[in-house]
Amino acid sequence: MNLDLKQQVVKANRALVSSGLVSLTWGNVSAIDRESGLIAIKPSGIDYADLNTEQLVILNLDGQVVEGDLRPSSDTKTHLELYRNFTSIGAVVHTHSPCATAFSQAGIPLPCLGTTHADHFYGEVPVARALTETEVKNDYEHATGVSIVERFRELNLVPMEVPAVLLQHHAPFTWGQTPLKALENSIALEMCAKMALMTWQLNPQSGPIPEHILEMHYSRKHGANAYYGQQD
Amino acid sequence: MNLDLKQQVVKANRALVSSGLVSLTWGNVSAIDRESGLIAIKPSGIDYADLNTEQLVILNLDGQVVEGDLRPSSDTKTHLELYRNFTSIGAVVHTHSPCATAFSQAGIPLPCLGTTHADHFYGEVPVARALTETEVKNDYEHATGVSIVERFRELNLVPMEVPAVLLQHHAPFTWGQTPLKALENSIALEMCAKMALMTWQLNPQSGPIPEHILEMHYSRKHGANAYYGQQD
Amino acid sequence: MNLDLKQQVVKANRALVSSGLVSLTWGNVSAIDRESGLIAIKPSGIDYADLNTEQLVILNLDGQVVEGDLRPSSDTKTHLELYRNFTSIGAVVHTHSPCATAFSQAGIPLPCLGTTHADHFYGEVPVARALTETEVKNDYEHATGVSIVERFRELNLVPMEVPAVLLQHHAPFTWGQTPLKALENSIALEMCAKMALMTWQLNPQSGPIPEHILEMHYSRKHGANAYYGQQD
Amino acid sequence: MNLDLKQQVVKANRALVSSGLVSLTWGNVSAIDRESGLIAIKPSGIDYADLNTEQLVILNLDGQVVEGDLRPSSDTKTHLELYRNFTSIGAVVHTHSPCATAFSQAGIPLPCLGTTHADHFYGEVPVARALTETEVKNDYEHATGVSIVERFRELNLVPMEVPAVLLQHHAPFTWGQTPLKALENSIALEMCAKMALMTWQLNPQSGPIPEHILEMHYSRKHGANAYYGQQD
Repeated sequence: MNLDLKQQVVKANRALVSSGLVSLTWGNVSAIDRESGLIAIKPSGIDYADLNTEQLVILNLDGQVVEGDLRPSSDTKTHLELYRNFTSIGAVVHTHSPCATAFSQAGIPLPCLGTTHADHFYGEVPVARALTETEVKNDYEHATGVSIVERFRELNLVPMEVPAVLLQHHAPFTWGQTPLKALENSIALEMCAKMALMTWQLNPQSGPIPEHILEMHYSRKHGANAYYGQQD
Repeated sequence: MNLDLKQQVVKANRALVSSGLVSLTWGNVSAIDRESGLIAIKPSGIDYADLNTEQLVILNLDGQVVEGDLRPSSDTKTHLELYRNFTSIGAVVHTHSPCATAFSQAGIPLPCLGTTHADHFYGEVPVARALTETEVKNDYEHATGVSIVERFRELNLVPMEVPAVLLQHHAPFTWGQTPLKALENSIALEMCAKMALMTWQLNPQSGPIPEHILEMHYSRKHGANAYYGQQD
Repeated sequence: MNLDLKQQVVKANRALVSSGLVSLTWGNVSAIDRESGLIAIKPSGIDYADLNTEQLVILNLDGQVVEGDLRPSSDTKTHLELYRNFTSIGAVVHTHSPCATAFSQAGIPLPCLGTTHADHFYGEVPVARALTETEVKNDYEHATGVSIVERFRELNLVPMEVPAVLLQHHAPFTWGQTPLKALENSIALEMCAKMALMTWQLNPQSGPIPEHILEMHYSRKHGANAYYGQQD
Repeated sequence: MNLDLKQQVVKANRALVSSGLVSLTWGNVSAIDRESGLIAIKPSGIDYADLNTEQLVILNLDGQVVEGDLRPSSDTKTHLELYRNFTSIGAVVHTHSPCATAFSQAGIPLPCLGTTHADHFYGEVPVARALTETEVKNDYEHATGVSIVERFRELNLVPMEVPAVLLQHHAPFTWGQTPLKALENSIALEMCAKMALMTWQLNPQSGPIPEHILEMHYSRKHGANAYYGQQD
């Protein structure tokens, strides 16, 4: 794996703290190099401030460590299951950001209540179901990934169009093409969750925005007709 | 356009982040030089930290770019419609600040619940209606501006007296004589929205303050008899 | 007035911003030198970052400016009325801190819901009544001070025991022996208001703590038997 | 007591402010050296920024000061009672962090609503009962400690498995093996309380997570089979 991608992973892990998404060591970022099939992930329990590229753990898609002396994030198997099934994604971010975590704990999907949401997520961010006792005991983090993939299949969601999920009883995962994009989706998810809490305090009946506004805002930023940002 | 105004636009764009109003690139500031009829606006999707005066896009009131290599903010046509119709304003700010955005998403105007509001806005901040599917598809950002102007005309509001609007399903716009004043109105709007959420948690029946207090506080700061601040 | 007291006033005015109590220029601190009967107060509308001791406006208790070229805070007459009637106080702070302002806007006194409150305020922080149209038109800021003094007399409150008030439709004032102590009371008031909002979300029936706990906590920090902090 | 432990106590006291848990001087950290039976605690009312190891007060388990010229924290007797009865703990932290304090004021225990909680606390964080008038008058801070120990005995809780308590009418205490670990538990408690408030806004029926998820998350981080973090 080239150094540049590792540096992006380190940078995005550190930004978890500076962006206010993560307290203590409650979060992790990984990225995949699709050519080699190798994944770089944060080591478990290491302070973000101390993190450097040498400490990253490099694994293949089967979860075998090919580089690094430290134990990988305890959530590694969830990341791997996402990379194996969502083949268009390049990076995964896990946080316990408070507002998105509240939606996870309440078991309530995050509907598209406004254009801030539509700019990042093409519709409702779903909740993946709670795991059974057997799933938890046998292979918890793997089963977590399986439940996410299952939910996206049930709802016919395109992972790159709705790059986020809320885990029942737990917290969110987001993803994107690069570590920075996956991080931006975590920031957007947290802000949309925060805004939704206040929107429902003001008007408990507030529901999704009309489809044509969702369509317009999402396509301003994504796809062939995007006109937000500068042309590449 | 003189350099000073461009510098004010850059400074106000950067202050969107330092004031906590904006996450990611969710906001933009523009200003108009009424003599030349030229507008300076933030380029689309550019990080605030990197922004400099050369990157600003300079357009005339018809939207033709007269200076700058970058694509202007995707919200440019909304800014232009405001400058064309609200001829007393000199700058426009758009943010997705969370509390004001919650009011937009809930579709609820922000009443004047206290003197903090009265110091900045002469009465309720209105909600501009949702756009029709046709308006969204034909010319979304232009129609957004039209809906704001329409709402102010319906309510007989003087733009410089109520320098803010909430867009249904979207987020706020504010304006003022200078980029700094328009920014201050965005800060005031966000704080008033935050206070209103808490006021209604304490007392859901809280309504507008008496007219004579609104009058007193607004006129302490604005107009011929203002005695707040230092004399110019 | 000696330079030291002026420096304390400048420092406390600046701390309004660093403590997060004040946005824009929504707050002011003054102090009185009881020997000379002179008051130092922030000039109106000046940025806190730029404030220095030469800019302070020095007035006597009748409101005559004896030093300084700038216009004093628009709230000066309220400060003066407090100094004239609450003869034990040495400094006054006015902010629009959001949670305390929400209580003001809702017109709800802040009861003593826990020991954090009891450590600073000997019981409920009262709301001063709204002013009549005549009072507002004739001499608004003076009438504001009168309404505070009136409320404390009605409730038989000792100003140094309950060094804070909430103004209906407006925002809080606090006071203390020194600018720093008055500022600390503003910080404590805001935190107690914030905690009260969350306490009532959890349990709308939560009421004042038992009298013996109020008594214990207040007297740990204040009066002859205080044992909090270091002996002077 | 060795200098290293004193430095940890100073560092953790300062971190109370940088972590946002404490306003003014509303918090204190202590640690015990179990070999000598000596406790180091913050002096009362001293600013965290000024705190150094020489200022710490060193006491034995009977509360006799053996080192230090300053008066110890007014909460010292509560700390001592915890060290005497919870023999596995090495450090104690007291804060008035706003969300946890709201639970204390409301008198509501904090249930395990998600895995963030389960990662730090093996089940519900209990509320210790209000003290009687006699207890408050006779020996308030000692009785506070007694009420905590009593509550843990009633509920058969293992102090190192649930390293936190909410005091009715007051605020939280947390503990841990080291000052840093006790501080981390204060941070975790505040975040879990914050998330719980939002979870219940979304879904007032939200209750504890299933036992097998609590078990899995707690044991990922604690005990013989822990696999979070790096092996020591």
